Amino acid sequence: KKIAVLKGDGIGPEVTDQALKVLKAVEKTFGHKFHYTEALVGAVAIDATGNPFPEETLKVCQSSDAILFGAIGHPKYDNDPKAKVRPEQGLLAMRKALGLFANIRPVNTYKILENASPLRADLVQNVDFVVFRELTGGIYFGTRGRSEDGNMAFDTCTYTRDEILRISKLAFESARQRKNHVTLVDKANVLASSRLWREVVKEYHAANFADVTLDFMFVDNAAMKIIQQPAFFDVVLTENMFGDIITDEASVITGSMGMLPSASVGSVVGLYEPIHGSYPEGAGLNIANPNGAILSAALLLETSFGMVAEAKAIRAAVEKAMEDGILTIDIRREKPNSTTEVGDYVAN
Amino acid sequence: KKIAVLKGDGIGPEVTDQALKVLKAVEKTFGHKFHYTEALVGAVAIDATGNPFPEETLKVCQSSDAILFGAIGHPKYDNDPKAKVRPEQGLLAMRKALGLFANIRPVNTYKILENASPLRADLVQNVDFVVFRELTGGIYFGTRGRSEDGNMAFDTCTYTRDEILRISKLAFESARQRKNHVTLVDKANVLASSRLWREVVKEYHAANFADVTLDFMFVDNAAMKIIQQPAFFDVVLTENMFGDIITDEASVITGSMGMLPSASVGSVVGLYEPIHGSYPEGAGLNIANPNGAILSAALLLETSFGMVAEAKAIRAAVEKAMEDGILTIDIRREKPNSTTEVGDYVAN
Ligand SMILES: CC(C)[C@H](C(=O)O)[C@@H](O)C(=O)O
Ligand SMILES: CC(C)[C@H](C(=O)O)[C@@H](O)C(=O)O
Repeated sequence: KKIAVLKGDGIGPEVTDQALKVLKAVEKTFGHKFHYTEALVGAVAIDATGNPFPEETLKVCQSSDAILFGAIGHPKYDNDPKAKVRPEQGLLAMRKALGLFANIRPVNTYKILENASPLRADLVQNVDFVVFRELTGGIYFGTRGRSEDGNMAFDTCTYTRDEILRISKLAFESARQRKNHVTLVDKANVLASSRLWREVVKEYHAANFADVTLDFMFVDNAAMKIIQQPAFFDVVLTENMFGDIITDEASVITGSMGMLPSASVGSVVGLYEPIHGSYPEGAGLNIANPNGAILSAALLLETSFGMVAEAKAIRAAVEKAMEDGILTIDIRREKPNSTTEVGDYVAN
Repeated sequence: KKIAVLKGDGIGPEVTDQALKVLKAVEKTFGHKFHYTEALVGAVAIDATGNPFPEETLKVCQSSDAILFGAIGHPKYDNDPKAKVRPEQGLLAMRKALGLFANIRPVNTYKILENASPLRADLVQNVDFVVFRELTGGIYFGTRGRSEDGNMAFDTCTYTRDEILRISKLAFESARQRKNHVTLVDKANVLASSRLWREVVKEYHAANFADVTLDFMFVDNAAMKIIQQPAFFDVVLTENMFGDIITDEASVITGSMGMLPSASVGSVVGLYEPIHGSYPEGAGLNIANPNGAILSAALLLETSFGMVAEAKAIRAAVEKAMEDGILTIDIRREKPNSTTEVGDYVAN
């Protein structure tokens, strides 16, 4: 099995290194052999090649069975509206080139983290949902531009029936393995694209998944509900831009941002990454929580390689480490453990 | 002074009636004379005329000095992607026809409500910010449609320099009266329209408001920050769709959704409404919190009529009622007061 390793920027390399340690421990324990190939992405790729997602990196990804990804983004490319290349463009180019049409983000809480949540503890108990965010369509990839005089700018949000169907399939299938409840988040009272989503999802549901409960929620209501009653949700299905906002909002209510993995899947190869960003201020300090990256490796084994027992073992090790009090500074301010300490402990 | 009264749907009429009681008390106490003209909007207007924002209503608004608005929306027009008219279209038509380009939403907490917040009490202390949401541009009003075969739908988000400038002016002026801090929320790492926002706001700030602190935040980060550190914000400036999501999210962190007023202003006439929706399930039950509507009347007096003392008196009366324990069911589950009881108490 070949794994492409794209560590990226900021704390990306540090946390990915811990995930690699854990994968190597899995190889040893379960008798597997994984082949790792590193490639550049993000600001480091711009610095080295001028391109945030170089051709070479695409090739490595395409010839791999799965991709382990760190994080990208660097402040030197931020806040400059005229910057020609941005690390984020690499991310978008990568999603498109690899056909990663569905971003899947489980949101769940850990007992030990209940008091780390910004929400009242009673609200975060039993929070366990997963967001299916469409990742290669919508306003992220539509036509955009400026008028000649520079005084007007526009972006286009486009969706097709097929784009909606393929991710809906994944969401409904997931619901059947979970609590049988899908919530479509859209803005159908304003947007034509949302009305298409609602229409297509309704038809598809009636024809194929009538046993799953389906409800609809406007994105502004969803932004409230995630705070007021997060345990309401089971599977959330939504388009690209709303998904961007909703998944980030959802991630912080758990108080365990540093713990959350994600998968981006499509027809070719799956990509796995912690949901936290590149956190450039923390880079090189050996303080970042590596569990998001480690749990992303578990998701990779399970989803792309079908290695369920191996994934389970990683999750158990992460929980054990937490119970044993091996915690980074985002979780315990006093005498925190370092990134590498957590990585070593989980790997062992 | 002429006030157009658009009560709308659901609980709109009930809460607006309490605001009217309070305005009448102000007339008496301060020796003013206001003239009220009612007009239809929303589902009730569709039922009566087929149009959610009838010509007649537009005329009433245009010939008034301010508009007091209830709420609109009715479930019988929801979830039907093929519905020809929707109450919400009336809202959008109204905003456009009246040139209401800026929606202004103060978000603040009440001591007595700290435990009603879904956030931990320590996080909501000192929350006091105001969101300036652009209201007549962006993806709400761009070209949209369906392909002929029905398989594709699109929406367009457009912004011009002038649209950005006029609301920026209001936001920066407000910051000077507050804590001198503006945060522009956008998605400049993806959207051309956001890059125009960032460029225009930067230039305008440097030329005219260099004394105000200006920072930039991606909308996904803002969705997190509002939960993790809401006291960070002073003035938030943002485009239409992001503003829709962000303002609703912000409103629930206070635990006082039913208490929050809003203003929509433009060049002609200001419109004032509670931020809660039409809450159709609660209609006719005399249980809704009328304070959002009452405080909207205060905002109306202050902003459109320059009646600062009158507005202050209303706010003091609302706080007094709360201190005296006159509270609707959203705030006190046991032995709550009714909508009319709160209205009467505040008016007295
Ligand atoms: C960096 C940015 C372009 C990206 C997005 O908006 O998709 C990020 O926020 C994410 O969610 O992966
Ligand atoms: C009803 C809807 C069209 C409206 C909007 O999205 O603007 C509402 O959510 C609001 O915020 O006033």
